[in-house]
Amino acid sequence: MALIVQKYGGTSVGSPERIEAVAARVKRWHEQGHDLVVVVSAMSGETNRLIGLAKAINPDPDPRELDVMVSTGEQVTIALLAMALLKIGIGARSYTGHQVTIRTDSAHTKARIESIDDAKMRADLAQRKVVIVAGFQGADAEGNITTLGRGGSDTTGVALAAALKADECQIYTDVDGVYTTDPRVVPQARRLDRITFEEMLEMASLGSKVLQIRSVEFAGKYNVPLRVLSSFGEGEGTLITVDTEDTMEQPVISGIAFTRDEAKITVRGVPDIPGIAYRILGPVGDANIEVDMIVQNVGADKMTDFTFTVARGDLKKALSVLEAVARDIGAREVTGDDKIAKVSLVGVGMRSHAGVASRMFGALAKDNINIQMISTSEIKISVVVEEKYLELAVRTLHTSFGLDQPAA
Amino acid sequence: MALIVQKYGGTSVGSPERIEAVAARVKRWHEQGHDLVVVVSAMSGETNRLIGLAKAINPDPDPRELDVMVSTGEQVTIALLAMALLKIGIGARSYTGHQVTIRTDSAHTKARIESIDDAKMRADLAQRKVVIVAGFQGADAEGNITTLGRGGSDTTGVALAAALKADECQIYTDVDGVYTTDPRVVPQARRLDRITFEEMLEMASLGSKVLQIRSVEFAGKYNVPLRVLSSFGEGEGTLITVDTEDTMEQPVISGIAFTRDEAKITVRGVPDIPGIAYRILGPVGDANIEVDMIVQNVGADKMTDFTFTVARGDLKKALSVLEAVARDIGAREVTGDDKIAKVSLVGVGMRSHAGVASRMFGALAKDNINIQMISTSEIKISVVVEEKYLELAVRTLHTSFGLDQPAA
Repeated sequence: MALIVQKYGGTSVGSPERIEAVAARVKRWHEQGHDLVVVVSAMSGETNRLIGLAKAINPDPDPRELDVMVSTGEQVTIALLAMALLKIGIGARSYTGHQVTIRTDSAHTKARIESIDDAKMRADLAQRKVVIVAGFQGADAEGNITTLGRGGSDTTGVALAAALKADECQIYTDVDGVYTTDPRVVPQARRLDRITFEEMLEMASLGSKVLQIRSVEFAGKYNVPLRVLSSFGEGEGTLITVDTEDTMEQPVISGIAFTRDEAKITVRGVPDIPGIAYRILGPVGDANIEVDMIVQNVGADKMTDFTFTVARGDLKKALSVLEAVARDIGAREVTGDDKIAKVSLVGVGMRSHAGVASRMFGALAKDNINIQMISTSEIKISVVVEEKYLELAVRTLHTSFGLDQPAA
Repeated sequence: MALIVQKYGGTSVGSPERIEAVAARVKRWHEQGHDLVVVVSAMSGETNRLIGLAKAINPDPDPRELDVMVSTGEQVTIALLAMALLKIGIGARSYTGHQVTIRTDSAHTKARIESIDDAKMRADLAQRKVVIVAGFQGADAEGNITTLGRGGSDTTGVALAAALKADECQIYTDVDGVYTTDPRVVPQARRLDRITFEEMLEMASLGSKVLQIRSVEFAGKYNVPLRVLSSFGEGEGTLITVDTEDTMEQPVISGIAFTRDEAKITVRGVPDIPGIAYRILGPVGDANIEVDMIVQNVGADKMTDFTFTVARGDLKKALSVLEAVARDIGAREVTGDDKIAKVSLVGVGMRSHAGVASRMFGALAKDNINIQMISTSEIKISVVVEEKYLELAVRTLHTSFGLDQPAA
């Protein structure tokens, strides 16, 4: 019998009927003998309704008061779920973050958890009660209500699992797990049974929006096994854990992530001298523009080309910043291209397998897909291609790396 | 400069615009140099919306969880009012009942306040901040959220005023004070500048629904001057205080209350023996039916008639209870009449003035209004008349007792 923390998002608790469905699911786990702590978000739409009320008063509302207000969304859900469980004969008790207490710092609207008092939860679990905790919120040392910012309910789930040394933290969402790639692009995409924290971080940051990055980092840090599964269907979902000894049996590649959200900027004819990268990217960073991939080719004739990617929405701003920079450093020209896409192979298996890159490039070449940029890390290879080739590239790679078939 | 507690009800804070109007009013008081603690209710409609959600899960929801949920209504309002004050440059801080702390017993949905910690409020007031407190709620010794039941926000206001020894507790409503009688019945009805707690209790319990009885009792007990005034207009409202030395100058009658909510039951031909009242009213009380006026005439031939009033909605139930009783005690007949109304003169002045009753009966007789029942107390005389004479009776009495003209 295990201690399990379950987290249900806003869509899963979006109406009284759905809350009753969650209660029925919790009951099944409880009847199998497990101890359960359930974290819930606000009913879908509720947080936006509350923020709308606040903005009607002030478009830039006071952060402390915004937290007092927005935290009511989860408070309503915990009470409703407790009522639903009590109705079907399961002992249950709800707690706000303040009541638990989930102690945070005082950074309103983006607070960080500092400690969790597990006394009340332990006492309830000892009586076989289901503990229901409001996600996304806590209280600082002075008792002020705080919220954890976007994705905060996942973080609450992981933090509670870590504090209680739970056997598993289950994140219920509207997808039934993590896939080898987006099934809308590759119909043969398969649900992964397992994936490592590292891989999940690469998949998430590259555009698979199943889990909030922060909660995956948090789970990895405290080694909390994290499972993503559907709150509407059945099934085992995907378990996210540390890299275990059976790595050798893992496939080379776990999944393929991609994004169309980037644009490419090339600064041509740059003097090939020390400090030039800083002189180009310094002003870009100062303008609060995040840079993702960066490539600098080996130069010729003491000149070089410098290419990097930014979020597509930042392209115009970045180009105008670089106009002045180009004049300063005597660059020949600056060009921008937002018709690009990034495709990434992710897998801890590539650490111990040579030739992943060449196999990737070979597969793309066979389909006449030109590679514009390349960047690699320990468990990831990313390429930038022309946007119109994105779907073809992902499908080709999915097949080439054997992801169409279940892992052996 | 005074310490003033203000309480605004649900209609006064029913929209962001109205909350901003409340903030503007609070600002005016604050700029006059007063220290302010403001208690607010949930936005109108919000509490019913929340209860509706709960009932969708369970028509009889768990009381602890209902309190967790319903208390969010006021929590939203305190944050919005704090935002509105901050926007117009007034320092303000919101507190839930739990945060203050307003300590209550554990009787969920109808908790009673046990103590109030004034430390945080005092610290804020010392910095000239406006303190905003959620009405209707508190927390028990274990930190469980509780609510005070109907009219609870008024009670919160009075309790805070008592704990802080405030100079005045102002209850803002949608009427501009307490009137000599209902202006819809008597157009000449006047707003009273002052009234005593005792009078207010008689007026309230007799149907003037300006203030919750419980908060008036509470204010009287702790001698908190209570002022009822309009949150939409200006004006002094009505001040409710203890009976002061200038009683002698007060009018004999302060106001006329009335109600159509009662029905009359007569048990005829009852043996005139000890214990007969108990044998009749015992079963009625056992059926959870409240009895208001009771009249027993002196009997003749060892028989008597017994008459009392109940809430009109309870008439049928009371009659069916009494059928069996009548058989048991050998009463001749039981009759019910729901075409009645009760009219009451209220005034501390009648203590020191003889002849109020005879003047009342004389005025009614002159208009041919028959009196069916009479009941008196220290500061009140009530009569039951046929319902169709209600308006005429109230108008006649309003004129007879000089209420049409401003007090000298």
